[in-house]
Amino acid sequence: MSIVLVSTARAPEKWASTLKEKNESLDIQIYPDVDRPEDIEFAISWKHPEGLYQTYPNLKVIASMGAGVNHILKDENLPEHVKVTRIVDDQLTKDMSHFVLLQCLAVSRNLFTHLQDQASKTWKMKSYQTPEKTSVGIMGYGVLGQAAGNVLKANGFDVRGYANTSKTVDGIKVYGADERDEFLKNTQILVCLLPVTSKTKGILNLEVFKKLKSNAYLVNVARGEHVVEADLISAIDRGILQGASLDVFQEEPLPESHPFWNHPHIQITPHVASMTDPESVANQLLENYRRMQNGESLMNEVDVDKGY
Amino acid sequence: MSIVLVSTARAPEKWASTLKEKNESLDIQIYPDVDRPEDIEFAISWKHPEGLYQTYPNLKVIASMGAGVNHILKDENLPEHVKVTRIVDDQLTKDMSHFVLLQCLAVSRNLFTHLQDQASKTWKMKSYQTPEKTSVGIMGYGVLGQAAGNVLKANGFDVRGYANTSKTVDGIKVYGADERDEFLKNTQILVCLLPVTSKTKGILNLEVFKKLKSNAYLVNVARGEHVVEADLISAIDRGILQGASLDVFQEEPLPESHPFWNHPHIQITPHVASMTDPESVANQLLENYRRMQNGESLMNEVDVDKGY
Repeated sequence: MSIVLVSTARAPEKWASTLKEKNESLDIQIYPDVDRPEDIEFAISWKHPEGLYQTYPNLKVIASMGAGVNHILKDENLPEHVKVTRIVDDQLTKDMSHFVLLQCLAVSRNLFTHLQDQASKTWKMKSYQTPEKTSVGIMGYGVLGQAAGNVLKANGFDVRGYANTSKTVDGIKVYGADERDEFLKNTQILVCLLPVTSKTKGILNLEVFKKLKSNAYLVNVARGEHVVEADLISAIDRGILQGASLDVFQEEPLPESHPFWNHPHIQITPHVASMTDPESVANQLLENYRRMQNGESLMNEVDVDKGY
Repeated sequence: MSIVLVSTARAPEKWASTLKEKNESLDIQIYPDVDRPEDIEFAISWKHPEGLYQTYPNLKVIASMGAGVNHILKDENLPEHVKVTRIVDDQLTKDMSHFVLLQCLAVSRNLFTHLQDQASKTWKMKSYQTPEKTSVGIMGYGVLGQAAGNVLKANGFDVRGYANTSKTVDGIKVYGADERDEFLKNTQILVCLLPVTSKTKGILNLEVFKKLKSNAYLVNVARGEHVVEADLISAIDRGILQGASLDVFQEEPLPESHPFWNHPHIQITPHVASMTDPESVANQLLENYRRMQNGESLMNEVDVDKGY
């Protein structure tokens, strides 16, 4: 029985050494140096090559290295009956909340404008918005959305959420899918924390941007697939949005020729809103490996049909 | 009896109209259009021309438009026996705390580095520090310092303070003047919120920077006079500091020829960490005007000898 580590974007060696420290007897193969594919039952995966998992005949579980699983599910040649799990990690959740808080504070305090002014040696005081007068709308109100909402609220922001069904969570109103327009028209800073599904792909489009409050700003920390890129650029250039902070992209690393790079009102970070620390999540991966071996139900298993 | 508004850097008309809305019968003169200097008993002041207040023979009170009063006290020709007040405003305090939080989050999450990378189209993931592993030291632990300390602590940062005397405030250890080295060696992000006095001028110098933790960062939101500018540049260029966020400068607006403008590791904001909102502070100014007329003791009076 063997574990395979498959990661083209994140260094797999650190993961291997961390897992080995926890359990020396583990048999770990690191893709592409796999010489016994028939031994592999458990894959720890980040952005694997399409079709790869068809080549491991005894694979039972694919565990995402992060909170997202779309990089796994979008493979049309995924073996049937294989189970998929995601990481749910308190630290990952906290880190995401802090990153969202940072972005919302930066927008309300005109930080990006001031840094641009610096480049042209321009001294220009500009009135800022207090958090109380800054309405933030969080699309996607699962574990990450709720945590971000609570941190923003604790720091004074005027927060609302958006999810499939209407509800109230920790005193924060969450609008349902049938109230989307109402949600958007009350939102100045739109934070995307949705999973990628057939329903949410391309959800950040011109029609949606137009319904936001004036001077709105987009913070996308979910996935690049949520954004219709041409619509985003057009919305900013037409003054429908004041700008956007993007941490995720349809293609990563963002290609050098991409117009986002030097757009004056787009702030780019290289997928760092929350980064899985192998040390912090090794135990839950190993626990699922143990559960798989014993035929028990897995933690944080994803509904492959729903996509999250 | 008349009030004079003196402000070369902040538009006085907004202040005049706000005060008039509260009390239509006020007699307000706006410098330099003063035709009855002998009527003036109360000045509302921001960066007045040196010696000006000698020309108002019946002046009793100079009220700063902001939290700082050094712009008043540094005038060597201030009339004797005139009283000086500062603004203490909850909103001003909160705004400052949020600005400090924004800067500390930006540093711990490598935001400035990522934005610089964007300028050169560089995709470079970089591990970040969690707030828990980021030690912030706040120099000056009065109203503003305490508020900032509490907000940082509430968001998980590892906070300590520095003041004249050692104490513990809301569970945060505040080092006294005799423990300065101990304070510095435990500090990675140094936040300056000191008043300007003969003791604190130039306190942010090479000797102090050298005692900080490695990879330290300076956030100055107090006054430009605290910084020895050549030392700051030298400390950054020698890798003693990783960088600095400066909101205040010895000369404001910062002159176009100043080397801070295009230093790659200095982030400049144009004195916007907290901006007095006339609406928010008109009542306390008018209350002091009333108290002065009735010979009562003033609110937020400054000890002119101490300087704060």
